[in-house]
Amino acid sequence: MEKKNGATANSEQSTTTFFEGDYGESFPKSKKVFLQSSRGVSVPMREITLSGGEPPIQVPDTSGSLEIDPQLGLPKIRENWIINRNGVEETSITYQDSDPANALEVPGPLLNKPLRSLNGPVTQLHYAKKGEITQEMEFVALREDMNPEFVRSEIAKGRAIIPANINHPELEPTIIGRAFKVKINANIGNSAVRSSIEEEVEKLKWATLWGSDTVMDLSTGKNIHQTRQWIIRNSAVPIGTVPIYQALEKVNGVPEELTWKIYRDTLIEQAEQGVDYFTVHAGVLLRFVPMTASRVTGIVSRGGSIMAKWCLAHHKESFLYTNFPEICEIMASYDVSFSLGDGLRPGSLADANDEAQFAELYTQGELTKIAWEHDVQVMCEGPGHVPMHMIKENMDKQLEWCHEAPFYTLGPLTTDIAPGYDHITSAIGAAQIGWYGTAMLCYVTPKEHLGLPNREDVKAGVIAYKIAAHAADLAKNHPRAREWDDAISKARFDFRWEDQFNLSLDPVTARAFHDETLPAEGAKVAHFCSMCGPKFCSMKITQDIRDYAEQTQRSAKPEIEKGLEEKSMEFRDKGSNLYVSVAED
Amino acid sequence: MEKKNGATANSEQSTTTFFEGDYGESFPKSKKVFLQSSRGVSVPMREITLSGGEPPIQVPDTSGSLEIDPQLGLPKIRENWIINRNGVEETSITYQDSDPANALEVPGPLLNKPLRSLNGPVTQLHYAKKGEITQEMEFVALREDMNPEFVRSEIAKGRAIIPANINHPELEPTIIGRAFKVKINANIGNSAVRSSIEEEVEKLKWATLWGSDTVMDLSTGKNIHQTRQWIIRNSAVPIGTVPIYQALEKVNGVPEELTWKIYRDTLIEQAEQGVDYFTVHAGVLLRFVPMTASRVTGIVSRGGSIMAKWCLAHHKESFLYTNFPEICEIMASYDVSFSLGDGLRPGSLADANDEAQFAELYTQGELTKIAWEHDVQVMCEGPGHVPMHMIKENMDKQLEWCHEAPFYTLGPLTTDIAPGYDHITSAIGAAQIGWYGTAMLCYVTPKEHLGLPNREDVKAGVIAYKIAAHAADLAKNHPRAREWDDAISKARFDFRWEDQFNLSLDPVTARAFHDETLPAEGAKVAHFCSMCGPKFCSMKITQDIRDYAEQTQRSAKPEIEKGLEEKSMEFRDKGSNLYVSVAED
Repeated sequence: MEKKNGATANSEQSTTTFFEGDYGESFPKSKKVFLQSSRGVSVPMREITLSGGEPPIQVPDTSGSLEIDPQLGLPKIRENWIINRNGVEETSITYQDSDPANALEVPGPLLNKPLRSLNGPVTQLHYAKKGEITQEMEFVALREDMNPEFVRSEIAKGRAIIPANINHPELEPTIIGRAFKVKINANIGNSAVRSSIEEEVEKLKWATLWGSDTVMDLSTGKNIHQTRQWIIRNSAVPIGTVPIYQALEKVNGVPEELTWKIYRDTLIEQAEQGVDYFTVHAGVLLRFVPMTASRVTGIVSRGGSIMAKWCLAHHKESFLYTNFPEICEIMASYDVSFSLGDGLRPGSLADANDEAQFAELYTQGELTKIAWEHDVQVMCEGPGHVPMHMIKENMDKQLEWCHEAPFYTLGPLTTDIAPGYDHITSAIGAAQIGWYGTAMLCYVTPKEHLGLPNREDVKAGVIAYKIAAHAADLAKNHPRAREWDDAISKARFDFRWEDQFNLSLDPVTARAFHDETLPAEGAKVAHFCSMCGPKFCSMKITQDIRDYAEQTQRSAKPEIEKGLEEKSMEFRDKGSNLYVSVAED
Repeated sequence: MEKKNGATANSEQSTTTFFEGDYGESFPKSKKVFLQSSRGVSVPMREITLSGGEPPIQVPDTSGSLEIDPQLGLPKIRENWIINRNGVEETSITYQDSDPANALEVPGPLLNKPLRSLNGPVTQLHYAKKGEITQEMEFVALREDMNPEFVRSEIAKGRAIIPANINHPELEPTIIGRAFKVKINANIGNSAVRSSIEEEVEKLKWATLWGSDTVMDLSTGKNIHQTRQWIIRNSAVPIGTVPIYQALEKVNGVPEELTWKIYRDTLIEQAEQGVDYFTVHAGVLLRFVPMTASRVTGIVSRGGSIMAKWCLAHHKESFLYTNFPEICEIMASYDVSFSLGDGLRPGSLADANDEAQFAELYTQGELTKIAWEHDVQVMCEGPGHVPMHMIKENMDKQLEWCHEAPFYTLGPLTTDIAPGYDHITSAIGAAQIGWYGTAMLCYVTPKEHLGLPNREDVKAGVIAYKIAAHAADLAKNHPRAREWDDAISKARFDFRWEDQFNLSLDPVTARAFHDETLPAEGAKVAHFCSMCGPKFCSMKITQDIRDYAEQTQRSAKPEIEKGLEEKSMEFRDKGSNLYVSVAED
């Protein structure tokens, strides 16, 4: 992969093709190609080769690289971009882990020498405001097929963010904003109960292979620092964390013992490692806590409940809120983006859109403005559990109160009655809120509410959310969204079975489902399928209709044109009464 | 089951409880109970027993009976209702199968002596118009917790239907209309490629166990008549068919050879067996066919393509359209409801909401009026493949053009790119259109576009659609919808794990997912779960917040009340500027 990137960077062509097999067994007939900018920015895309003389189609690629040894980490494609902006200096690692329980060693190649800003913000927002188009902006512009200047202006307005820590040079930047494709996030992370570092790196690779645009490491057990170090060095996508989780580990899980100092040190520690965005629950204010006591499901956010308990125990305002300007200064020095947490999000339909939730959302808006004053990029987190008819209010209020900062929601789940299937209950809500303008959707796996997701659960969650995000792109009329659908529909109608499989979000599953009924290779070129059998196929009959029209010299084409012309005249003349005469028998 | 029904019919109580285990292993702690009307109508509900002093909760039951030998068929609960209306006579079976390939014998107990109307319509619509509340109306009123007179008036207006053939006395009636709970349909049926009668009866039982409200038998291979006979005699839910499929078998799969006589005989044959609703593609008119030739996916409906081919071959108007009044007369004589087919529905996003589709929809509206003149109940079928932003137009036009007859849609799928996951792509669209007013959602299984669904696919499709339908009920503010969600949310917050499993749509899967991470029995009463571990649980912390508030004499309650009062005053005073002061630090 290092070699490949090197090769493309030097290439004169606008698109360079590499060997097949970039995706293991998962995407047959797909290969990684690179879009090139004049400045040498090289953006990976997945190109699917089709049969029947159809042109190949390119779809987004978030897979990073599968072949790289996780003990070595990914190539540092952003290193020169960051250094050449002349705003940073090398620093020594602040973090010293004194807990003997965390004795796990990180391999040498996975250690990084941290950078920090020399003097003032080094954020994408800072450069955007100054009118500079960074390589990161160029990267996402190529990836989204958008104008780089438009990308810059959206970032400058706070309507989009590129989470891109200067200590995460392995990152292939992505943009989160409602003018762009809807993104999805997958959560991984060990916990006190199970999992291991290797498993988490494997889950990262797996989640991004299937299309996750960002990954949050929600580890809460031992070796949090070490796990994160492995993850960041192996991640081509932005990594988010919830720093309060690690801070809590440092005080042995007792929220009352948290201090601003411990939290602050944790922020710096994680910023030095390269975390791209932090969930910060600074909107959970002391006065909001009692609003949750009569809820059906109280406070369900971990971060929210920790801060609520701290506030009540000390009877003081949240240290995240009182120290918010200093948090901004730290994040500006590394370009860590805010994901302003929704610690009071509803955990059930009964609690949706209540006073506690909206009090916090309003506060998120105030914090957004403060962060922007410090040139820190911001997105805002949203719910949760919300019935369909109450979803739009969330989006409307967020746009208004949070000044169009990108919204990042967890689902929302549209019913509470289907544990085991919450990837579906929430994909319904996610698709909708994505359509309304949410920029990123945090996935929910089938294990939500029940247990820790395994490999198959992660995949199920990612695929469900790729569906939701793509459905939202289509509904928003994103200019490039429908070409993928049209390509697969054409393949379906042409009985190009292999193309239909290869164009699907999960080719191997599509093929396996087909082969369960018709395993023979011949069936993959047959002009029928198992649903109807050979004699009885609507697609075949449609083809017959077209052929028939041709054979009998009564070509369908003039008929259609004539028909359309007549109809369009009728439309003009009669409006919706067009077909009134049709059924009068 | 016969005994049970007998017992309940004579019972004086309003609710009678039977032994546990009515649902095999699928629904632990659930039992079948019966709601009783004063006229002796007895409606099954599934009652879930809860722990912790919580009252049991009743949810809809469509399972019929699992214990009955399929060779005997279900008890004929409607027999007396039908006979006592004095509108019917016994007749001999019209159908004689002369095809030696269909030699399969139907067991004696599964044969029925057909009834037909003595004189004029015997439909629920007919009685409703006359102001009569039938036992069927009483049944659905109890089932939905609605006023029987309201049920009658909705049927009389054509806004709801109770598909209930007089030859399907085994039926537990259900109502399809947008004032009622959203219903779902599961398709089963053998085909030329595989499957068998026993498998299809098994699929029927399986689909209704998980909650399918109606089932369509789409068989197209050999022994169609025999398969249907087994299915109807074993079905407590309405059975729908597409009679043109069997008619086509009778002419060896050659659409051009179809005749009105063959089709008419097939209608009578199926009406005598007890089919409750027929999909009739009478809106596919000759002049509409050329509108499809330039589509990306042409005509994807089997019925639609058969009729299109017939029309073109003969260059004549569809015999379904020209003979529509006679079809109405036949259906009125048995109370078969129309499901007016959408033969020109889009098979891809590219073809959504096009001229061909809407031309047919408009015609469905004209046909609806004709059917109503004959006192025949009608619902209208809808798409298909539609991106989210184009879904509402379908509902709006259908309500307007089809005079508020119930809408019955297939999905719609909101993207084409996920074969293997089309239960999800379509559940997103189904939930939405259900919210907008669609009365019944036809399920889509993961095998859609790929192969014939097996047992697990049927279950996956039904569960995805129960989610979509319930999400729609919630969004429509159906008065009884949210109690189920609230019960499970409360169980979740109280750490009543067993209750949470038992209240879910699929208890066994929910429990298995939980046990994958925490298999010990003790974990099911533990006040934590595997997501966060024992020390780190937001629900536990919320409980701590409540406890803390109590212990320290600063009970949360007055604080909340005070808070709410202040807030509500602020609301009145300041409108949406409520929290302006909050974040001004």
